[in-house]
Amino acid sequence: MQLGFVGLGKMGGFMVQRLLNDKHDIVGFDLSADVVKQLAAKGMTASSSIEDMVGKLKGRKAVWIMVPAGKPTEDTIQHLVGLLNKGDIIIDGGNSYYKDDVRRAKELQAKGIHYIDVGTSGGVWGLKNGYCMMIGGEKDVFTYLDPIFKTLGPVDGYAYMGASGSGHLVKMIHNGIEYGMMQAYAEGFEIMKKSEYGLDLAKIADLWMHASVVRSWLLELTAEGLKQDPELSGLKGWVADSGEGRWTILEAIDKDVPAPVITASLFERFHSRQPDSFAAKMLAMMRNQFGGHAVKK
Amino acid sequence: MQLGFVGLGKMGGFMVQRLLNDKHDIVGFDLSADVVKQLAAKGMTASSSIEDMVGKLKGRKAVWIMVPAGKPTEDTIQHLVGLLNKGDIIIDGGNSYYKDDVRRAKELQAKGIHYIDVGTSGGVWGLKNGYCMMIGGEKDVFTYLDPIFKTLGPVDGYAYMGASGSGHLVKMIHNGIEYGMMQAYAEGFEIMKKSEYGLDLAKIADLWMHASVVRSWLLELTAEGLKQDPELSGLKGWVADSGEGRWTILEAIDKDVPAPVITASLFERFHSRQPDSFAAKMLAMMRNQFGGHAVKK
Repeated sequence: MQLGFVGLGKMGGFMVQRLLNDKHDIVGFDLSADVVKQLAAKGMTASSSIEDMVGKLKGRKAVWIMVPAGKPTEDTIQHLVGLLNKGDIIIDGGNSYYKDDVRRAKELQAKGIHYIDVGTSGGVWGLKNGYCMMIGGEKDVFTYLDPIFKTLGPVDGYAYMGASGSGHLVKMIHNGIEYGMMQAYAEGFEIMKKSEYGLDLAKIADLWMHASVVRSWLLELTAEGLKQDPELSGLKGWVADSGEGRWTILEAIDKDVPAPVITASLFERFHSRQPDSFAAKMLAMMRNQFGGHAVKK
Repeated sequence: MQLGFVGLGKMGGFMVQRLLNDKHDIVGFDLSADVVKQLAAKGMTASSSIEDMVGKLKGRKAVWIMVPAGKPTEDTIQHLVGLLNKGDIIIDGGNSYYKDDVRRAKELQAKGIHYIDVGTSGGVWGLKNGYCMMIGGEKDVFTYLDPIFKTLGPVDGYAYMGASGSGHLVKMIHNGIEYGMMQAYAEGFEIMKKSEYGLDLAKIADLWMHASVVRSWLLELTAEGLKQDPELSGLKGWVADSGEGRWTILEAIDKDVPAPVITASLFERFHSRQPDSFAAKMLAMMRNQFGGHAVKK
Protein backbone atom coordinates (compact mmCIF):
# COMPACT_ATOMS: atom_id res chain seq x y z
CA MET A 1 0.00 0.00 0.00
CA GLN A 2 1.01 3.67 -0.25
CA LEU A 3 2.70 5.21 2.80
CA GLY A 4 4.37 8.54 3.52
CA PHE A 5 7.56 8.21 5.58
CA VAL A 6 9.30 11.00 7.52
CA GLY A 7 12.75 10.23 8.95
CA LEU A 8 15.04 7.97 6.94
CA GLY A 9 17.83 7.51 9.50
CA LYS A 10 19.29 4.25 10.82
CA MET A 11 15.89 2.80 11.78
CA GLY A 12 13.64 4.57 9.25
CA GLY A 13 15.95 3.95 6.31
CA PHE A 14 16.06 0.19 6.90
CA MET A 15 12.29 0.07 7.42
CA VAL A 16 11.71 1.81 4.08
CA GLN A 17 14.04 -0.69 2.40
CA ARG A 18 12.04 -3.56 3.86
CA LEU A 19 8.80 -1.94 2.65
CA LEU A 20 10.24 -1.33 -0.83
CA ASN A 21 11.46 -4.95 -1.05
CA ASP A 22 7.84 -5.97 -0.51
CA LYS A 23 6.55 -3.63 -3.28
CA HIS A 24 4.93 -0.96 -1.12
CA ASP A 25 4.67 2.53 -2.60
CA ILE A 26 6.71 4.72 -0.23
CA VAL A 27 6.91 8.51 -0.48
CA GLY A 28 9.82 9.47 1.74
CA PHE A 29 11.21 12.64 3.24
CA ASP A 30 14.29 13.35 5.36
CA LEU A 31 16.16 16.52 6.29
CA SER A 32 19.16 14.96 4.54
CA ALA A 33 18.66 15.18 0.76
CA ASP A 34 21.47 12.61 0.33
CA VAL A 35 19.57 9.95 2.25
CA VAL A 36 16.43 10.68 0.20
CA LYS A 37 18.45 10.29 -3.01
CA GLN A 38 19.94 6.95 -1.87
CA LEU A 39 16.53 5.46 -1.12
CA ALA A 40 15.02 6.93 -4.31
CA ALA A 41 17.65 4.89 -6.18
CA LYS A 42 16.11 1.81 -4.51
CA GLY A 43 12.56 2.66 -5.66
CA MET A 44 11.29 5.17 -3.10
CA THR A 45 9.38 8.21 -4.37
CA ALA A 46 11.52 11.16 -3.24
CA SER A 47 10.11 14.33 -1.76
CA SER A 48 11.76 17.62 -0.91
CA SER A 49 9.59 18.67 2.03
CA ILE A 50 6.76 17.42 4.21
CA GLU A 51 4.34 19.43 2.01
CA ASP A 52 5.78 17.81 -1.11
CA MET A 53 5.46 14.34 0.49
CA VAL A 54 1.83 14.84 1.53
CA GLY A 55 1.04 16.24 -1.94
CA LYS A 56 2.29 13.02 -3.53
CA LEU A 57 -0.01 10.79 -1.42
CA LYS A 58 -3.40 9.80 -2.90
CA GLY A 59 -6.76 8.92 -1.28
CA ARG A 60 -6.67 8.14 2.45
CA LYS A 61 -3.22 9.29 3.50
CA ALA A 62 -1.08 7.49 6.06
CA VAL A 63 2.28 8.89 7.22
CA TRP A 64 4.84 6.99 9.31
CA ILE A 65 7.06 9.21 11.49
CA MET A 66 10.45 7.85 12.53
CA VAL A 67 12.27 10.80 14.07
CA PRO A 68 13.69 11.31 17.59
CA ALA A 69 11.15 11.44 20.42
CA GLY A 70 10.22 14.81 21.96
CA LYS A 71 10.39 18.05 19.97
CA PRO A 72 11.31 16.56 16.56
CA THR A 73 8.32 14.18 16.68
CA GLU A 74 6.00 16.85 18.12
CA ASP A 75 6.98 19.40 15.46
CA THR A 76 6.56 16.87 12.64
CA ILE A 77 3.08 15.96 13.87
CA GLN A 78 2.01 19.62 14.20
CA HIS A 79 3.30 20.25 10.69
CA LEU A 80 1.41 17.24 9.29
CA VAL A 81 -1.85 18.16 11.04
CA GLY A 82 -2.15 21.28 8.88
CA LEU A 83 -1.73 19.23 5.70
CA LEU A 84 -3.80 16.08 6.29
CA ASN A 85 -7.55 15.54 5.88
CA LYS A 86 -10.23 13.91 8.00
CA GLY A 87 -9.74 10.14 8.13
CA ASP A 88 -5.99 10.33 7.42
CA ILE A 89 -3.54 8.54 9.70
CA ILE A 90 -0.36 9.52 11.53
CA ILE A 91 1.82 6.66 12.79
CA ASP A 92 4.51 7.41 15.37
CA GLY A 93 7.02 4.56 15.10
CA GLY A 94 9.65 6.24 17.30
CA ASN A 95 10.24 6.09 21.03
CA SER A 96 7.69 8.64 22.27
CA TYR A 97 6.64 8.78 25.90
CA TYR A 98 3.26 7.04 26.06
CA LYS A 99 1.58 9.94 27.86
CA ASP A 100 2.42 12.12 24.84
CA ASP A 101 0.57 9.59 22.69
CA VAL A 102 -2.54 9.83 24.86
CA ARG A 103 -2.55 13.63 24.57
CA ARG A 104 -1.80 13.65 20.83
CA ALA A 105 -4.41 11.03 19.99
CA LYS A 106 -7.02 13.19 21.73
CA GLU A 107 -5.88 16.39 19.99
CA LEU A 108 -5.85 14.70 16.58
CA GLN A 109 -9.21 13.01 17.18
CA ALA A 110 -10.78 16.47 17.50
CA LYS A 111 -9.56 17.09 13.94
CA GLY A 112 -10.71 13.72 12.62
CA ILE A 113 -7.13 12.47 12.18
CA HIS A 114 -6.21 9.04 13.50
CA TYR A 115 -3.08 8.39 15.52
CA ILE A 116 -1.29 5.06 15.93
CA ASP A 117 1.66 4.54 18.28
CA VAL A 118 4.13 1.80 17.39
CA GLY A 119 6.88 0.65 19.71
CA THR A 120 9.55 -0.81 17.46
CA SER A 121 12.32 -3.16 18.57
CA GLY A 122 15.03 -4.88 16.59
CA GLY A 123 17.64 -2.17 16.03
CA VAL A 124 19.85 -2.35 12.98
CA TRP A 125 19.02 -6.07 12.63
CA GLY A 126 15.42 -5.27 11.68
CA LEU A 127 16.17 -5.06 7.95
CA LYS A 128 17.14 -8.73 7.99
CA ASN A 129 15.02 -10.15 10.85
CA GLY A 130 12.03 -7.81 10.75
CA TYR A 131 10.93 -5.47 13.54
CA CYS A 132 9.04 -6.53 16.64
CA MET A 133 6.15 -4.04 16.87
CA MET A 134 3.85 -3.23 19.79
CA ILE A 135 0.90 -1.21 18.49
CA GLY A 136 -1.62 1.09 20.20
CA GLY A 137 -4.60 3.17 18.97
CA GLU A 138 -7.93 2.48 17.31
CA LYS A 139 -8.26 -1.20 16.46
CA ASP A 140 -9.84 -0.65 13.03
CA VAL A 141 -7.01 1.69 12.01
CA PHE A 142 -4.51 -0.94 13.16
CA THR A 143 -6.34 -3.44 10.95
CA TYR A 144 -6.35 -1.01 7.99
CA LEU A 145 -2.55 -0.71 8.25
CA ASP A 146 -2.03 -4.46 8.46
CA PRO A 147 -0.24 -4.77 5.07
CA ILE A 148 2.47 -2.38 6.35
CA PHE A 149 2.91 -4.19 9.68
CA LYS A 150 2.94 -7.56 7.91
CA THR A 151 5.91 -6.43 5.80
CA LEU A 152 7.86 -4.77 8.62
CA GLY A 153 7.47 -7.56 11.18
CA PRO A 154 8.48 -11.18 11.10
CA VAL A 155 5.62 -13.74 11.25
CA ASP A 156 3.80 -13.16 14.58
CA GLY A 157 6.14 -10.22 15.15
CA TYR A 158 3.56 -7.49 15.69
CA ALA A 159 0.44 -7.25 17.81
CA TYR A 160 -2.30 -4.86 18.89
CA MET A 161 -1.77 -3.86 22.53
CA GLY A 162 -4.80 -1.62 23.23
CA ALA A 163 -5.81 2.05 23.36
CA SER A 164 -3.53 4.96 22.36
CA GLY A 165 -0.21 4.92 24.20
CA SER A 166 -0.20 1.19 24.93
CA GLY A 167 2.20 0.43 22.07
CA HIS A 168 4.80 2.84 23.40
CA LEU A 169 4.12 1.86 27.02
CA VAL A 170 4.93 -1.77 26.27
CA LYS A 171 8.01 -0.76 24.26
CA MET A 172 9.14 1.46 27.17
CA ILE A 173 8.93 -1.48 29.60
CA HIS A 174 10.68 -3.67 27.02
CA ASN A 175 13.59 -1.23 27.10
CA GLY A 176 13.58 -1.06 30.90
CA ILE A 177 13.90 -4.85 30.98
CA GLU A 178 16.66 -4.60 28.37
CA TYR A 179 18.62 -2.25 30.68
CA GLY A 180 18.34 -4.79 33.52
CA MET A 181 19.35 -7.77 31.40
CA MET A 182 22.33 -5.91 29.95
CA GLN A 183 23.51 -4.83 33.39
CA ALA A 184 23.19 -8.40 34.74
CA TYR A 185 25.41 -9.71 31.95
CA ALA A 186 27.81 -6.78 32.34
CA GLU A 187 28.29 -7.38 36.07
CA GLY A 188 28.77 -11.12 35.63
CA PHE A 189 31.35 -10.69 32.89
CA GLU A 190 33.29 -8.11 34.89
CA ILE A 191 33.45 -10.48 37.86
CA MET A 192 34.76 -13.24 35.56
CA LYS A 193 37.21 -10.80 33.94
CA LYS A 194 38.74 -10.13 37.38
CA SER A 195 39.08 -13.85 38.19
CA GLU A 196 42.53 -15.39 38.59
CA TYR A 197 41.60 -18.22 36.20
CA GLY A 198 42.29 -16.13 33.09
CA LEU A 199 38.91 -17.03 31.65
CA ASP A 200 38.14 -16.73 27.95
CA LEU A 201 35.04 -14.53 28.04
CA ALA A 202 34.17 -14.84 24.36
CA LYS A 203 34.33 -18.63 24.65
CA ILE A 204 32.08 -18.53 27.72
CA ALA A 205 29.50 -16.28 26.06
CA ASP A 206 29.49 -18.59 23.09
CA LEU A 207 29.27 -21.71 25.28
CA TRP A 208 26.29 -20.27 27.18
CA MET A 209 24.40 -19.93 23.90
CA HIS A 210 24.17 -23.74 23.86
CA ALA A 211 21.38 -24.97 26.13
CA SER A 212 22.20 -22.73 29.13
CA VAL A 213 19.46 -20.91 31.04
CA VAL A 214 20.91 -17.46 30.21
CA ARG A 215 20.95 -17.83 26.44
CA SER A 216 19.43 -14.87 24.65
CA TRP A 217 19.82 -12.71 21.59
CA LEU A 218 21.71 -10.14 23.70
CA LEU A 219 24.16 -12.88 24.72
CA GLU A 220 24.61 -13.86 21.08
CA LEU A 221 25.57 -10.27 20.23
CA THR A 222 27.78 -10.19 23.35
CA ALA A 223 29.67 -13.28 22.19
CA GLU A 224 30.18 -11.64 18.79
CA GLY A 225 31.42 -8.38 20.34
CA LEU A 226 33.84 -10.18 22.68
CA LYS A 227 35.18 -12.26 19.80
CA GLN A 228 35.98 -9.10 17.86
CA ASP A 229 37.65 -7.35 20.83
CA PRO A 230 38.14 -9.65 23.87
CA GLU A 231 39.50 -6.83 26.06
CA LEU A 232 36.97 -4.26 24.78
CA SER A 233 40.07 -2.13 24.42
CA GLY A 234 38.50 -0.14 21.62
CA LEU A 235 35.75 1.17 23.89
CA LYS A 236 35.38 3.66 26.71
CA GLY A 237 33.10 2.59 29.59
CA TRP A 238 30.65 5.37 28.86
CA VAL A 239 26.98 4.49 28.32
CA ALA A 240 24.16 6.71 27.09
CA ASP A 241 20.47 6.30 27.83
CA SER A 242 17.65 7.30 25.55
CA GLY A 243 14.86 8.06 28.03
CA GLU A 244 12.86 4.86 28.13
CA GLY A 245 14.69 3.53 31.21
CA ARG A 246 13.85 6.77 33.01
CA TRP A 247 10.19 6.58 32.01
CA THR A 248 9.97 2.94 33.09
CA ILE A 249 11.09 4.00 36.58
CA LEU A 250 8.60 6.91 36.63
CA GLU A 251 5.91 4.36 35.77
CA ALA A 252 7.10 2.02 38.52
CA ILE A 253 6.87 4.90 41.01
CA ASP A 254 3.43 5.88 39.70
CA LYS A 255 2.16 2.32 40.17
CA ASP A 256 3.95 1.57 43.49
CA VAL A 257 6.02 -1.26 41.95
CA PRO A 258 9.48 -1.92 43.45
CA ALA A 259 11.90 -1.95 40.52
CA PRO A 260 15.38 -1.99 42.08
CA VAL A 261 17.08 -3.80 39.19
CA ILE A 262 15.82 -1.55 36.41
CA THR A 263 16.56 1.50 38.57
CA ALA A 264 20.09 0.33 39.41
CA SER A 265 20.69 -0.36 35.69
CA LEU A 266 19.86 3.22 34.79
CA PHE A 267 21.95 4.58 37.67
CA GLU A 268 24.93 2.46 36.55
CA ARG A 269 24.70 4.26 33.21
CA PHE A 270 24.80 7.58 35.05
CA HIS A 271 27.85 6.30 36.95
CA SER A 272 29.56 5.44 33.69
CA ARG A 273 29.32 9.10 32.69
CA GLN A 274 30.77 10.55 35.92
CA PRO A 275 34.04 8.80 36.81
CA ASP A 276 34.82 11.46 39.43
CA SER A 277 31.43 12.02 41.05
CA PHE A 278 30.44 14.60 43.61
CA ALA A 279 28.83 11.86 45.70
CA ALA A 280 32.15 9.98 45.85
CA LYS A 281 33.89 13.23 46.85
CA MET A 282 31.27 13.64 49.59
CA LEU A 283 32.07 10.16 50.90
CA ALA A 284 35.81 10.80 50.83
CA MET A 285 35.30 14.13 52.63
CA MET A 286 33.13 12.57 55.36
CA ARG A 287 35.56 9.68 55.97
CA ASN A 288 38.30 12.22 56.29
CA GLN A 289 36.24 14.38 58.68
CA PHE A 290 35.37 11.66 61.16
CA GLY A 291 38.33 9.35 60.84
CA GLY A 292 41.12 11.35 59.26
CA HIS A 293 41.17 8.72 56.51
CA ALA A 294 43.40 9.33 53.50
CA VAL A 295 41.90 11.05 50.46
CA LYS A 296 43.07 11.54 46.88
CA LYS A 297 43.26 15.06 45.49
CA MET B 1 32.24 -45.57 28.26
CA GLN B 2 31.67 -46.90 31.78
CA LEU B 3 30.70 -44.37 34.44
CA GLY B 4 29.59 -44.60 38.06
CA PHE B 5 26.78 -42.19 38.93
CA VAL B 6 25.72 -41.11 42.44
CA GLY B 7 22.49 -39.11 42.77
CA LEU B 8 19.65 -39.93 40.39
CA GLY B 9 17.28 -37.07 41.23
CA LYS B 10 15.70 -34.54 38.85
CA MET B 11 19.03 -33.59 37.24
CA GLY B 12 21.01 -36.81 37.70
CA GLY B 13 18.19 -39.08 36.57
CA PHE B 14 17.74 -37.24 33.28
CA MET B 15 21.50 -37.17 32.72
CA VAL B 16 21.71 -40.94 33.18
CA GLN B 17 18.86 -41.40 30.70
CA ARG B 18 20.72 -39.30 28.15
CA LEU B 19 23.87 -41.37 28.75
CA LEU B 20 21.95 -44.66 28.44
CA ASN B 21 20.30 -43.50 25.21
CA ASP B 22 23.80 -43.07 23.82
CA LYS B 23 24.89 -46.62 24.90
CA HIS B 24 27.15 -45.68 27.81
CA ASP B 25 27.56 -48.26 30.57
CA ILE B 26 26.22 -46.55 33.70
CA VAL B 27 26.43 -48.03 37.20
CA GLY B 28 24.05 -45.94 39.29
CA PHE B 29 23.32 -45.44 42.96
CA ASP B 30 20.76 -43.33 44.78
CA LEU B 31 19.44 -43.31 48.35
CA SER B 32 16.03 -44.05 46.84
CA ALA B 33 15.92 -47.71 45.76
CA ASP B 34 12.80 -46.92 43.69
CA VAL B 35 14.67 -44.46 41.51
CA VAL B 36 17.48 -46.99 41.02
CA LYS B 37 14.91 -49.62 39.97
CA GLN B 38 13.26 -47.24 37.46
CA LEU B 39 16.55 -46.46 35.74
CA ALA B 40 17.66 -50.09 35.86
CA ALA B 41 14.55 -50.84 33.80
CA LYS B 42 15.98 -48.46 31.20
CA GLY B 43 19.33 -50.23 31.05
CA MET B 44 21.32 -48.84 33.98
CA THR B 45 23.32 -51.26 36.10
CA ALA B 46 21.76 -50.97 39.56
CA SER B 47 23.76 -50.83 42.78
CA SER B 48 22.67 -50.94 46.39
CA SER B 49 25.42 -48.81 47.94
CA ILE B 50 28.41 -46.70 46.98
CA GLU B 51 30.65 -49.71 47.76
CA ASP B 52 28.52 -51.90 45.51
CA MET B 53 28.69 -49.28 42.72
CA VAL B 54 32.47 -48.91 42.91
CA GLY B 55 32.82 -52.71 43.00
CA LYS B 56 30.96 -52.94 39.68
CA LEU B 57 33.30 -50.51 37.89
CA LYS B 58 36.23 -51.94 35.93
CA GLY B 59 39.68 -50.57 35.06
CA ARG B 60 40.16 -46.81 35.52
CA LYS B 61 37.10 -45.81 37.49
CA ALA B 62 35.21 -42.54 36.98
CA VAL B 63 32.29 -41.53 39.21
CA TRP B 64 29.92 -38.63 38.53
CA ILE B 65 28.38 -37.07 41.66
CA MET B 66 25.07 -35.24 41.28
CA VAL B 67 23.89 -34.58 44.82
CA PRO B 68 23.14 -31.28 46.64
CA ALA B 69 26.13 -28.99 47.24
CA GLY B 70 27.69 -28.81 50.70
CA LYS B 71 27.57 -31.72 53.13
CA PRO B 72 25.92 -34.32 50.83
CA THR B 73 28.58 -33.75 48.16
CA GLU B 74 31.40 -33.57 50.70
CA ASP B 75 30.30 -36.81 52.40
CA THR B 76 29.94 -38.65 49.10
CA ILE B 77 33.45 -37.60 48.07
CA GLN B 78 34.96 -38.66 51.40
CA HIS B 79 33.19 -41.99 51.08
CA LEU B 80 34.47 -42.52 47.54
CA VAL B 81 38.05 -41.60 48.41
CA GLY B 82 38.34 -44.71 50.57
CA LEU B 83 37.17 -46.93 47.73
CA LEU B 84 38.92 -45.56 44.65
CA ASN B 85 42.45 -46.22 43.36
CA LYS B 86 45.23 -44.00 42.08
CA GLY B 87 44.33 -42.55 38.69
CA ASP B 88 40.57 -42.82 39.24
CA ILE B 89 38.36 -39.79 38.70
CA ILE B 90 35.66 -38.03 40.72
CA ILE B 91 33.42 -35.60 38.81
CA ASP B 92 31.30 -33.15 40.77
CA GLY B 93 28.47 -32.13 38.44
CA GLY B 94 26.46 -30.32 41.13
CA ASN B 95 26.50 -26.72 42.27
CA SER B 96 29.51 -26.73 44.62
CA TYR B 97 31.15 -23.51 45.72
CA TYR B 98 34.28 -23.18 43.60
CA LYS B 99 36.56 -22.67 46.60
CA ASP B 100 35.50 -26.13 47.82
CA ASP B 101 36.66 -27.52 44.46
CA VAL B 102 40.08 -25.93 44.86
CA ARG B 103 40.48 -27.49 48.31
CA ARG B 104 39.13 -30.90 47.28
CA ALA B 105 41.22 -31.13 44.14
CA LYS B 106 44.33 -30.53 46.27
CA GLU B 107 43.29 -33.10 48.89
CA LEU B 108 42.49 -35.71 46.25
CA GLN B 109 45.69 -34.99 44.31
CA ALA B 110 47.67 -36.06 47.39
CA LYS B 111 45.95 -39.44 47.03
CA GLY B 112 46.47 -39.66 43.28
CA ILE B 113 42.75 -39.24 42.56
CA HIS B 114 41.67 -36.73 39.92
CA TYR B 115 38.89 -34.24 40.48
CA ILE B 116 36.82 -32.53 37.79
CA ASP B 117 34.25 -29.78 38.53
CA VAL B 118 31.38 -29.41 36.10
CA GLY B 119 28.93 -26.52 36.22
CA THR B 120 25.77 -27.82 34.59
CA SER B 121 22.96 -25.65 33.22
CA GLY B 122 19.78 -26.62 31.43
CA GLY B 123 17.45 -27.72 34.21
CA VAL B 124 14.74 -30.25 33.46
CA TRP B 125 15.05 -29.41 29.74
CA GLY B 126 18.49 -31.01 29.58
CA LEU B 127 17.19 -34.46 28.72
CA LYS B 128 15.80 -33.07 25.48
CA ASN B 129 18.19 -30.17 24.72
CA GLY B 130 21.37 -31.42 26.38
CA TYR B 131 23.22 -29.75 29.24
CA CYS B 132 25.46 -26.71 28.91
CA MET B 133 28.63 -27.70 30.83
CA MET B 134 31.46 -25.51 32.12
CA ILE B 135 34.35 -27.75 33.10
CA GLY B 136 37.37 -27.23 35.37
CA GLY B 137 40.32 -29.44 36.40
CA GLU B 138 43.23 -31.17 34.70
CA LYS B 139 42.99 -30.75 30.94
CA ASP B 140 44.01 -34.34 30.13
CA VAL B 141 41.34 -35.74 32.45
CA PHE B 142 38.79 -33.47 30.77
CA THR B 143 39.92 -34.93 27.43
CA TYR B 144 39.71 -38.50 28.77
CA LEU B 145 36.06 -37.89 29.76
CA ASP B 146 35.16 -36.37 26.40
CA PRO B 147 32.80 -39.23 25.36
CA ILE B 148 30.66 -38.52 28.44
CA PHE B 149 30.56 -34.75 27.87
CA LYS B 150 29.82 -35.24 24.18
CA THR B 151 26.71 -37.24 25.05
CA LEU B 152 25.47 -34.94 27.81
CA GLY B 153 25.97 -31.66 25.95
CA PRO B 154 24.53 -30.40 22.71
CA VAL B 155 27.04 -29.72 19.91
CA ASP B 156 29.44 -27.02 21.18
CA GLY B 157 27.61 -27.21 24.50
CA TYR B 158 30.56 -27.95 26.78
CA ALA B 159 33.99 -26.41 27.17
CA TYR B 160 37.12 -26.53 29.29
CA MET B 161 37.36 -23.42 31.45
CA GLY B 162 40.68 -23.89 33.26
CA ALA B 163 42.13 -25.12 36.57
CA SER B 164 40.07 -26.75 39.33
CA GLY B 165 37.14 -24.62 40.43
CA SER B 166 36.82 -22.70 37.19
CA GLY B 167 33.89 -24.81 35.99
CA HIS B 168 31.84 -24.07 39.08
CA LEU B 169 33.00 -20.44 39.18
CA VAL B 170 31.67 -19.82 35.69
CA LYS B 171 28.44 -21.67 36.52
CA MET B 172 28.09 -19.57 39.68
CA ILE B 173 28.36 -16.34 37.68
CA HIS B 174 25.95 -17.81 35.11
CA ASN B 175 23.40 -18.19 37.90
CA GLY B 176 24.07 -14.70 39.26
CA ILE B 177 23.33 -13.32 35.80
CA GLU B 178 20.22 -15.50 35.67
CA TYR B 179 18.96 -13.90 38.91
CA GLY B 180 19.40 -10.42 37.40
CA MET B 181 17.71 -11.29 34.11
CA MET B 182 14.77 -12.92 35.89
CA GLN B 183 14.33 -9.93 38.18
CA ALA B 184 14.44 -7.50 35.23
CA TYR B 185 11.64 -9.39 33.48
CA ALA B 186 9.71 -9.75 36.75
CA GLU B 187 9.79 -5.99 37.44
CA GLY B 188 8.80 -5.09 33.89
CA PHE B 189 5.88 -7.50 33.86
CA GLU B 190 4.62 -6.27 37.23
CA ILE B 191 4.67 -2.67 35.97
CA MET B 192 2.68 -3.74 32.89
CA LYS B 193 0.30 -5.77 35.07
CA LYS B 194 -0.54 -2.60 37.03
CA SER B 195 -1.18 -0.55 33.87
CA GLU B 196 -4.70 0.74 33.15
CA TYR B 197 -4.52 -0.65 29.61
CA GLY B 198 -5.47 -4.18 30.67
CA LEU B 199 -2.49 -5.62 28.82
CA ASP B 200 -2.33 -9.28 27.81
CA LEU B 201 0.99 -10.28 29.37
CA ALA B 202 1.19 -13.74 27.77
CA LYS B 203 0.62 -12.17 24.35
CA ILE B 204 3.36 -9.60 25.03
CA ALA B 205 5.88 -12.23 26.18
CA ASP B 206 5.10 -14.23 23.07
CA LEU B 207 5.32 -11.15 20.81
CA TRP B 208 8.72 -10.21 22.26
CA MET B 209 10.06 -13.61 21.22
CA HIS B 210 9.82 -12.40 17.61
CA ALA B 211 12.79 -10.19 16.72
CA SER B 212 12.74 -8.04 19.89
CA VAL B 213 15.96 -7.18 21.73
CA VAL B 214 14.83 -8.94 24.94
CA ARG B 215 14.12 -12.34 23.43
CA SER B 216 15.65 -15.20 25.36
CA TRP B 217 15.02 -18.73 26.49
CA LEU B 218 13.83 -17.42 29.87
CA LEU B 219 11.28 -15.24 28.04
CA GLU B 220 10.10 -18.26 26.04
CA LEU B 221 9.46 -20.14 29.30
CA THR B 222 7.83 -17.00 30.73
CA ALA B 223 5.41 -16.81 27.80
CA GLU B 224 4.53 -20.48 28.33
CA GLY B 225 3.97 -19.98 32.09
CA LEU B 226 1.78 -16.90 31.55
CA LYS B 227 -0.27 -18.72 28.92
CA GLN B 228 -0.98 -21.52 31.41
CA ASP B 229 -1.92 -19.13 34.24
CA PRO B 230 -2.15 -15.46 33.14
CA GLU B 231 -2.79 -14.18 36.68
CA LEU B 232 -0.23 -16.56 38.26
CA SER B 233 -3.08 -17.24 40.66
CA GLY B 234 -1.76 -20.71 41.39
CA LEU B 235 1.46 -19.35 42.87
CA LYS B 236 2.59 -17.59 46.02
CA GLY B 237 5.16 -14.80 45.54
CA TRP B 238 7.78 -16.73 47.50
CA VAL B 239 11.16 -17.38 45.88
CA ALA B 240 13.99 -19.62 47.09
CA ASP B 241 17.67 -19.23 46.33
CA SER B 242 20.18 -22.02 46.06
CA GLY B 243 23.42 -20.30 47.08
CA GLU B 244 25.00 -19.36 43.79
CA GLY B 245 23.56 -15.84 43.83
CA ARG B 246 25.09 -15.33 47.29
CA TRP B 247 28.48 -16.65 46.17
CA THR B 248 28.44 -14.42 43.07
CA ILE B 249 28.06 -11.40 45.35
CA LEU B 250 30.84 -12.61 47.67
CA GLU B 251 33.03 -12.90 44.57
CA ALA B 252 32.06 -9.39 43.43
CA ILE B 253 33.04 -8.05 46.88
CA ASP B 254 36.30 -10.03 46.80
CA LYS B 255 37.19 -8.55 43.40
CA ASP B 256 35.90 -4.97 44.06
CA VAL B 257 33.31 -5.22 41.27
CA PRO B 258 30.09 -3.17 41.69
CA ALA B 259 27.21 -5.62 41.16
CA PRO B 260 24.09 -3.72 42.20
CA VAL B 261 21.72 -5.60 39.89
CA ILE B 262 22.75 -9.12 40.89
CA THR B 263 22.76 -8.03 44.55
CA ALA B 264 19.30 -6.44 44.32
CA SER B 265 18.01 -9.60 42.60
CA LEU B 266 19.08 -11.75 45.53
CA PHE B 267 17.70 -9.27 48.06
CA GLU B 268 14.33 -9.25 46.24
CA ARG B 269 14.20 -13.00 46.82
CA PHE B 270 14.82 -12.39 50.52
CA HIS B 271 11.99 -9.81 50.44
CA SER B 272 9.67 -12.36 48.89
CA ARG B 273 10.17 -14.55 51.96
CA GLN B 274 9.49 -11.85 54.58
CA PRO B 275 6.26 -10.02 53.77
CA ASP B 276 6.24 -8.38 57.22
CA SER B 277 9.89 -7.46 57.69
CA PHE B 278 11.60 -6.06 60.74
CA ALA B 279 13.21 -3.37 58.54
CA ALA B 280 9.75 -2.20 57.40
CA LYS B 281 8.61 -2.15 61.04
CA MET B 282 11.71 -0.04 61.84
CA LEU B 283 10.73 2.46 59.12
CA ALA B 284 7.13 2.63 60.36
CA MET B 285 8.33 3.14 63.94
CA MET B 286 10.73 5.95 62.99
CA ARG B 287 8.11 7.77 60.86
CA ASN B 288 5.79 7.55 63.83
CA GLN B 289 8.48 8.80 66.23
CA PHE B 290 9.42 11.93 64.31
CA GLY B 291 6.17 12.76 62.57
CA GLY B 292 3.41 10.97 64.42
CA HIS B 293 2.58 9.27 61.12
CA ALA B 294 -0.04 6.51 61.15
CA VAL B 295 1.13 2.92 61.54
CA LYS B 296 -0.56 -0.44 61.09
CA LYS B 297 -0.60 -2.90 63.99
